[in-house]
Parts: sequence; C-alpha cells; structure tokens
Amino acid sequence: MTDRKEFRELVDPETAEAAVAALPINPGTEERPLKTARGATLAERIDATIDVPGFDRATLDGYAVNARDTFGADEAEPVTLSVVGVVEAGEQPPETLSAGEAVEIATGAVLPPGADAMVPIERIREGETTIDVETAVAPGDNIAFAGADIAAGDRAFGPGRRLTSREIALLAALGRETVTVQSPPTVGIISTGNELVQPGNPLQHDRGEIYDVNSHSIAAAVTEAGGEPTVFTPVGDDRAAITDVIDRATETCDLVVSSGSTSASAADQVYRVIADRGEVHVHGVKLKPGKPTIIGTINDTGYVGLPGYPVSALMVFHTLVAPTLRTAVGRSTQSTPQRTATMAREERFTEGRRRLLPVGVVTSGDGELLAYPVDRGSGATTSVAAADGLVTVPADVSYLADGETVTVEFFAASIQPPSVLVIGESDPAVGQALDALDHPRYRQTGTRVGLRQLRAGIPDVVVVTGPFDPAAETVELASFQRDWGLVVPAGNPDEVEGLTSLIDRDLTFVNRVADAGIRAALDNRLAALAEERDTGRRTLEAAIDGWGQTTRGLESPARAVLRGTADVGVGIAATERALDVEVLSLGSLSVRVLAASDRYDKAGVQALETALETALG
Amino acid sequence: MTDRKEFRELVDPETAEAAVAALPINPGTEERPLKTARGATLAERIDATIDVPGFDRATLDGYAVNARDTFGADEAEPVTLSVVGVVEAGEQPPETLSAGEAVEIATGAVLPPGADAMVPIERIREGETTIDVETAVAPGDNIAFAGADIAAGDRAFGPGRRLTSREIALLAALGRETVTVQSPPTVGIISTGNELVQPGNPLQHDRGEIYDVNSHSIAAAVTEAGGEPTVFTPVGDDRAAITDVIDRATETCDLVVSSGSTSASAADQVYRVIADRGEVHVHGVKLKPGKPTIIGTINDTGYVGLPGYPVSALMVFHTLVAPTLRTAVGRSTQSTPQRTATMAREERFTEGRRRLLPVGVVTSGDGELLAYPVDRGSGATTSVAAADGLVTVPADVSYLADGETVTVEFFAASIQPPSVLVIGESDPAVGQALDALDHPRYRQTGTRVGLRQLRAGIPDVVVVTGPFDPAAETVELASFQRDWGLVVPAGNPDEVEGLTSLIDRDLTFVNRVADAGIRAALDNRLAALAEERDTGRRTLEAAIDGWGQTTRGLESPARAVLRGTADVGVGIAATERALDVEVLSLGSLSVRVLAASDRYDKAGVQALETALETALG
Repeated sequence: MTDRKEFRELVDPETAEAAVAALPINPGTEERPLKTARGATLAERIDATIDVPGFDRATLDGYAVNARDTFGADEAEPVTLSVVGVVEAGEQPPETLSAGEAVEIATGAVLPPGADAMVPIERIREGETTIDVETAVAPGDNIAFAGADIAAGDRAFGPGRRLTSREIALLAALGRETVTVQSPPTVGIISTGNELVQPGNPLQHDRGEIYDVNSHSIAAAVTEAGGEPTVFTPVGDDRAAITDVIDRATETCDLVVSSGSTSASAADQVYRVIADRGEVHVHGVKLKPGKPTIIGTINDTGYVGLPGYPVSALMVFHTLVAPTLRTAVGRSTQSTPQRTATMAREERFTEGRRRLLPVGVVTSGDGELLAYPVDRGSGATTSVAAADGLVTVPADVSYLADGETVTVEFFAASIQPPSVLVIGESDPAVGQALDALDHPRYRQTGTRVGLRQLRAGIPDVVVVTGPFDPAAETVELASFQRDWGLVVPAGNPDEVEGLTSLIDRDLTFVNRVADAGIRAALDNRLAALAEERDTGRRTLEAAIDGWGQTTRGLESPARAVLRGTADVGVGIAATERALDVEVLSLGSLSVRVLAASDRYDKAGVQALETALETALG
Repeated sequence: MTDRKEFRELVDPETAEAAVAALPINPGTEERPLKTARGATLAERIDATIDVPGFDRATLDGYAVNARDTFGADEAEPVTLSVVGVVEAGEQPPETLSAGEAVEIATGAVLPPGADAMVPIERIREGETTIDVETAVAPGDNIAFAGADIAAGDRAFGPGRRLTSREIALLAALGRETVTVQSPPTVGIISTGNELVQPGNPLQHDRGEIYDVNSHSIAAAVTEAGGEPTVFTPVGDDRAAITDVIDRATETCDLVVSSGSTSASAADQVYRVIADRGEVHVHGVKLKPGKPTIIGTINDTGYVGLPGYPVSALMVFHTLVAPTLRTAVGRSTQSTPQRTATMAREERFTEGRRRLLPVGVVTSGDGELLAYPVDRGSGATTSVAAADGLVTVPADVSYLADGETVTVEFFAASIQPPSVLVIGESDPAVGQALDALDHPRYRQTGTRVGLRQLRAGIPDVVVVTGPFDPAAETVELASFQRDWGLVVPAGNPDEVEGLTSLIDRDLTFVNRVADAGIRAALDNRLAALAEERDTGRRTLEAAIDGWGQTTRGLESPARAVLRGTADVGVGIAATERALDVEVLSLGSLSVRVLAASDRYDKAGVQALETALETALG
C-alpha cells in the first residue's frame, strides 16, 4: 500500500474565503494611455485642472446677441440687428459686440465679448447685412458657460472607479493623455497530472490520457475576473518537476493557482511542495466540490491549489478565488449577475458540507426562470458547458424542493437562458436545425433521460426514438425516419454482408450502450435472426466478438472502425456524410421531436419548428 | 450670409435604426487559438469528435473491483479481496481483473478490464496484499463511463455561441486547439472640427479650443460593443482633409463612425462628402439629441455621422450603432442591463421628437432605485460622467411625473448605483474623504443647486456654505471652517495687501460667479469697506479691474493667476497645497455636510461620516 496522507482539519468555507482574501496580492499601479484605459480601474484621484468648457460658448447654430437688444421681439415685431462678423468653432471671435449688433456663431464657438446670449437660426430671418430676430432671449440663453460641465478644482473621480466609455469621455475632456490604473494581477496557472495532453495533440485512451482543460478554462476565468493569466506548461506528478514549476510561478506572479494533485492520495504532491517551500494555511474545506483545496504562501506569493476535475476547479475558483481577484483590480467582489429562479425539480444532498450545485436555467411558458441541476457526476465536463451558474446550498440543507426559490449566480455576465432547451436523442438533423437559432441548448442524453426530464418539467423539447410513450402533454414539431445499419470502412474492404457476417466470420464488432434507440433495434434484428436459425439470442451474441464492447456516442462505433480498433460497428446512415465510412442498411428508425405543450408558444420553440421544416425540407 | 443647407426629410428613429442595421458590416471569420478565444463568438458548429471521457474511469481514489464480489459486504462483515496491482491517472491498467481481485486506482485512472465498479478508499481497510471491503457497490458505482460527458457525434455548440470560461472548458476537453470565431468589425473613428486638440497638449481657450473627446469615448464604446476601433487623426472642417480621411477610413474599415460637422450649418462638410463619394440614406432623425445624424454608404462600407457634442454622440451611438455592432459579432442586440427605476423628480419636454434622457441613479433609504435627469445642457460632458444610463422618452410624451416608473438602460454592464450621492459645494476636504469610499459620486453644482436637488429628494448628502436654510430634514455629518482670501502668485510679487490694493492700485482681478459662497463673502467684505470709506459698493466694484470677470471653479481664479491672465484672484486657503500660489486670508467660511434624514442609514452615508471624521482629524 502506498503512503497515504490524511487531510488536516477541514475548515469552513468562510475561513477559506478569508484565507484567500488575506493572500498578499499587490499588483501595484501603472500609467496607461487613455486609448487603452477602458476596462481598467482608476488608481488615482482625478481633479479637474481646467474649466470645461474653457470659455462661454454657443450651444446651437445662430447669432450671438446682447439679450437686452431682443426684449419684446416676436414674429410679428422682430428686432433688426446689424451683423458685424462670423465666428466658427475653433476661431477667436472677431470683435466685441456693441448694442444693436449681432455676430453669426456656430455651435461650440466662443461667445464674443459683449454678447450674453444667442438666438438659434430657426428664430432668425437673415438679410444682406442685418438679421430680424423673432424671439426674445434672456442672458445666458443657449450659452454653455465656462466651467459649466466641470470647473477647475472639482473632483472628477476617485481611485477605484472602473473606466467605461463615459469616464473616458470626461478624462479626455479634461485633457488627460494617460491615467494611473490598477495593474492587473498576474496569475500563474499550473495544471498537474501525468494524464494531461494539450489540445491539438492525439490522445491515447488506453493509457487514460485526457486533454488539459484547466489550463484553458481557469485562464479564461482569471481574465473574466480581471487578472492576467500566465499559463505554465503542465507537469506530471513528478515531485521535482512540480517543485520547479511552482518555484518559477511564485517568483514571477502575484498569485499562483494550480489544479490537480491536491487530494490525499498517494500521488498528492502539491501539498508537500507548498509545505516544504512555504506555508500551508488551509488544506481541506467543508465544500463539495472543493474538499481538497489548498491555500498557502511561498515567499509572500499567494497559492491556491484547486481540485483537478474541470467542473470542481471552475466552481471553486469562482467561489473562492474570483472575489479576491476582483477586489485586487478594484471591482466589486460580486460582479457576475445573480437572479432568482424556481427549482424545476427537487434535489437531495447527503453531505454535511456546503454544496456548489451547477444548474442550468430555462424560462417556463409563463416566462418564469427555472433552475435545474445539471451535474452528471463530479467529473463531467459538460455539466459546466450545460450549466449557466451555480446555486450555493448551505451545509445544513439536505433538500431543495420542486418549486423552491433559489438564487442562481451566473458564471459570466453575458450568460442568458437558452432560447430553447432540447434534451434527448442525439440527431444530426436536429443539430443542423438548431444552427439557425440564437443560443439554443441541446443536451444529448438519450431518449430515456430526455423523457424523464420532460416529465419533471425541464426541457422545452425532447428528441425521442423508439416506441416510448412521452407520458406528458406534447406537440409534435417534426417526425422523420433515419436509416441505420452496420458501419464498415469506406469501400467495405472485408465484404461484410450483414449480421450473418458478424456471426459466421472472424470480425471484431463495437456496439452501442443498452439504452440507445439503435441498440434496441439491433437487439430486435438479432432476436429475429436467432428465431430464423432456431437458436437462442444469447448464442448469437456470444458468437459476435465485441458484442459487449459498448459505446455511448452515435458516432463512437464509426470512429472505432476508422481507428481500426474494430472491423464493424453500428450507426446511422447520416454518419456516411460526416466520416469516411459506409453504412450497410439494416432498416430505419423513427425520430420524433416533441415540444412540451405549455412551452409550445415560446419563441425559441416556434423558431425550432420552422428550422426543422427547412432542414427536413 | 453663408450658404446654409436645410435637413432633408427627418426620419423616425425606427427608420434610422433599420438603416444602420442594413449597412453592409461583414467582418467575416477567423481562426483563433483557444488561448485567446474567450469573449469571441463562435462562427462554426462544434460537434464532439471524441468521447469525453475517452475511457471508463474512476471518479474517486480507491479500489477497482467486480461489483458482484462485494455483494453483502458491510462494516461488520467485510469482503476480503487480493490486491493485484495499482493504476494511477495516465497509466495503462496493469492487468485484467479476475473474481476475488482488486486493483488500487487513483481518481481519473482507467478502469481495468474486468472491473465494473470501484470502492472509495474511505470504505476500505487496507492489509499487506489484501483489502477488506466494508460496503457493497453496484456495477457502475463511482465510475464515469466513456462518453458520459459528451459522446462522439454529439453537438456541442452552434455558431453564435459567446465563448466564456465554461465553453472554453468543453472546447479544451474536446481537444480543440483553435476555433473559428467571428472577426470583430473594424470601426474607423473620425472626429472633425477645427477646435479639437488632442489630450496632453495645451489648449488655447480664447480661440475656443477644446479637447477631442469623441475619438476616445466612441472608441471605448466601440470596444464595449465588441468592435475593434481604428482612430484616425481628427481633421478640421476643411473639405479636402475630410474627403481624404473618409476615403482612407472607408477603404480599410468595416464601418466608419464620425462625429461633428453633421449639422445644417455653413461648416457642414460630412454630408457633402458622403453625398459626393457614395450615398446618403438618412440625414436627420426625429431624435433629441441626434437630429443631425447621417447614415450612408461609400463603396459598400457603412457610414454613420454622429452629432459632435460628446453626450449626444455617445447616446446616439449607444442607441443607433451599438445594437448593430453587437449583432455583427454575434451578441444579442441588447447586452447592457436594463433596470426599472422611479423618477425622483418630474421632467417636462417641449419637443415632439423621441428623447434620449441621460439619467443618474441613486438608491432611496428603502433601497428603491431612483432615476434623475442629469443633463446640464446638451453640450455638457459631465452629464455623461454623471449619468448611469438613459431613459428613452417616446415622441408623444411631454411629461414624466415625479414617482413615474421608467426603464433605465445602463451605459455599461459594470455600472451600479453610487454608494453615496453627494451634491453641492466643491470642497477639497469632502473630495478627500470620498477617496476612502467605494464608487461614490460627487456633483459639484454649488450650494444653491445642491439644496434644490435635496428638496427634490435626489442626493443622499449636500455640501453647503453660507447661511442657507436646507428646508429639508437633514442630519449634520460634519461642519468645519475654511479660510478664504485673495490669491496671488507664490511669494506675493506685487506685494498685495488686501482689498485696498485692488481698489487703489493698477492690478487685474479675476472673480467667482455670483452664486459661489466665497463670492457672497467677498461681496460682504467690499460692502463693509465701502461703508468704512463712506462710498457706494458699486463705486469700489468699478474701481477693480476685472471684478466682472467671473469664473465657475473653486480653483479657476488661482489658475488664471498662475497663467498670468490676472494678478489677483479669490480662493480658499487649501488651494495653496494644490497649486503654487499664496492665499492672503480675508476670513473663514463655514462648510456643512448634511445627509437627508431618510438616507442617513445608508451604508455609503455612514461610510462618508466616518471618512469625514478621519479626514478632518
């Protein structure tokens, strides 16, 4: 048995939050040109050093006058003034105005000395060298006085102000070419694990290799929180390599966030390196997911070790690390939107730890926001892709009721409920139709799970194959047949002739999982063949090498055939268009796309119905 | 009289919106590395080409077993299995499991052939070469099956999906190194006007020069809407220069946005250039501000000419241009948040055009969101800096009542109501105290306006000087004296000895406006001196060269003295700390900081009271 380390005392989530908040993240400030300052947080006081505007100016096109000259004027009895000049914006006024005189003036131009008001062009009748003024104006009418916007000595903004286009406008008006802003904290990102491969490279599934998700997703989350990620090359579970990368990261960054290698297993290395090089403040949090979280410091640089699972890593980052990063860049700790929602189905919890529950949201037929849990196991990556945010469930709550009100913290400001939520069978025609819609969501869980969710009141639409009864009020949006059969390499090199070839010849097969619609159809075919041959179905199954080798995806068998790990698979005819394979037809299966009756009027459902009509032509 | 062009037919705002939406903005797509794809909008369909995970794997640390072997096991009667190997994440399993055997397995490692479940380490007692299993598990327990997250052939995302950290996670899990995203449209930005000076350079006020605001603020607004701004060097009102820059911009950009030179005045040039080089679709919109807006095309590149005033330009950009830019990058047209608010005071409109009303927001003592108009004249830059968003008032509405419900469209997603809204006298001590607060707002309007706003129920806090009665229920947060006097250059080179020097010697003076508290005090001093000399106050005023030269800002006279445009000014003693001047004391004025009683409990007001105590020692 390998050496196994126990977690030290598990701390409350509040203690962990405080420990992260206390990490010494001091990125300092920097001088930034106004052109690139948008989005940054001001780190200085900005007082006006000039009056804006710097002079009394006209707010309209017209004539500068002495208001006293216009008293009593109207359309019936205009006042005639002699025009003594013109002043455009950016010009010095030609002369001082005397009584009875006017100067043509453009919007924004300097009011000539002696003038105290202006008359807009619409109220003037212009002559050769005179004008008739058809309205009386009061002193100050249509004039912006010097300092009216902001005057020298006034406070414009203080430190901590987030710079948007409106702040940029005033900074430009005050003549600022550069401003002092908070430097974004540099966050070093380290993924650990022997099994990690960078996207773009081939995977060896049999060695348990997976793509490195956290380097990318945590870097994106750091950017979302206002930090500047520096991604270090991921390292395996080798102690020396981990020590080396942690040393480099803590030397050059304001904060280091790693993921993986934090559990109490034999392969745990991060904890030991932190303990060896610096100080561990927290190892273990009463949070699910998030129990193996490490918080520490090495040479005055903060360190947070996140769990390795992508979903867990992102949620714990969001909960424990993001608020502190936002504070460090002067944003409010809570910058992602929160919305109240109703639980679409109950959810039970067995743990006495605070729970971070990833949820998706969908709007009901009445426009109410519903939340539903999307966790497909703590290792599932799609539960992040399908989740819009998280619901924090206190440690002493073991049950969220159907209809209970919860607060959903959205993962990002740009996230909104899907226009239509489709759950069920994976189908290329449905996927194609959805491309025409704005932000749809399609969860390909298979028919059975789709129907279960439909009965729970979650999806707008389900996609089903096979003879299932929806057992819920639905409206059929579309129904079509899809051909299925045996998948072989293009050209059918083994000259496969159907199920009999699988039974009678030395070919390896790759099957689908038991709850796939296509698998049920294949089972029926095999049963019919058994009857024909007057034998048991089991006997035929046993004669097929790989019958028990099952895969979950619609295209998985075809891909196994392409890789050469099997000679024959099972799949649908449409796969021929996507992959270089041939499908030997064994029949056709009906696919139905059904909308929940009370969601049929939703704009997204209507749009899908139209798109399906187009796609199925 | 110069040649003046009338607007052609004014169009409805809806027509203008449609004309902008119809502009040919086709930025195309580009291949982006996953590392920099966050924030972009997907321009391709992403289908899973692999199963994720790619193999059956353990979701916890423990032992892989055959579930059948554990049936009936519990703490009292554990089942003993022999350990035949270890498998870590990223390793190929050592061998196939037979009945009665177990393999130690790490989280994420490949499930060995023959195993169909795993037992977590917490439910195991480990021996030398055997383990005691203290719980029964069912097939599939603690296993993530291949394809459970997403299976080959499943649709992951469609085009139009905005990429946040959660989408990046799934793209990485699928092994994508690059993705095809919408290219941001390049937006050429042109400011026009002879009066424009770039920030960082000195201004000549007497020539009516102002800083170029729109190049910076519209560029920031373009970035906020998802576009990529290209700022062209601003040009004057010269036809050839305008033609040249418009030609260059329309050749290289997907859209060109200019500001200024769009009005029907003599200096209008942009209209003529568009009409000459391309086509004008719209010139004049029934929108206030925004009447002189131009929409056209030159060689298949869209062109929008905005009004020149910064506030108008930003609001019209926000209303007419931003939705189309957001659509072009695949964002929803409405991406800035909207909130319902209550009008804090009535507002009347005289125009029959749709009105864009810039408003600030503040929370009442009950936490209700109040909106108040902040326009200080259509040329005011601060009405953008003080505004949080805009309220769109339909053309047929001439009146918004106090207490009426309105929808505020926020200018940016990060904008939130100020922690405390302070209005009134400009004061350095108050400005200093506010630095300790998170997002306060301080509108320095002078005492009279501050009190008027207080009575309308708008500010949390007013700053007043002089003997004014607030005429509203208030709580005093602080009260202090500030010394004031005559401002002279450091060292007092003219040996000014007080008011008598101004009257009796040949010195030029610069005054403050009539409603400044300090001006009232100065008036009183002069009246007392007149009585002493047995003459009229007017006589003494007439003897002071520049008495009528008034400025709005607290520091404006001191800055005039520094510039040498006057020998003596009037100001407060604190200005000595900010500028290189000397203040010859003439007395002291009381400043009071008063909170509206019903806002006294607001956290921001409490924080200000504490900060004032600290600042005033």
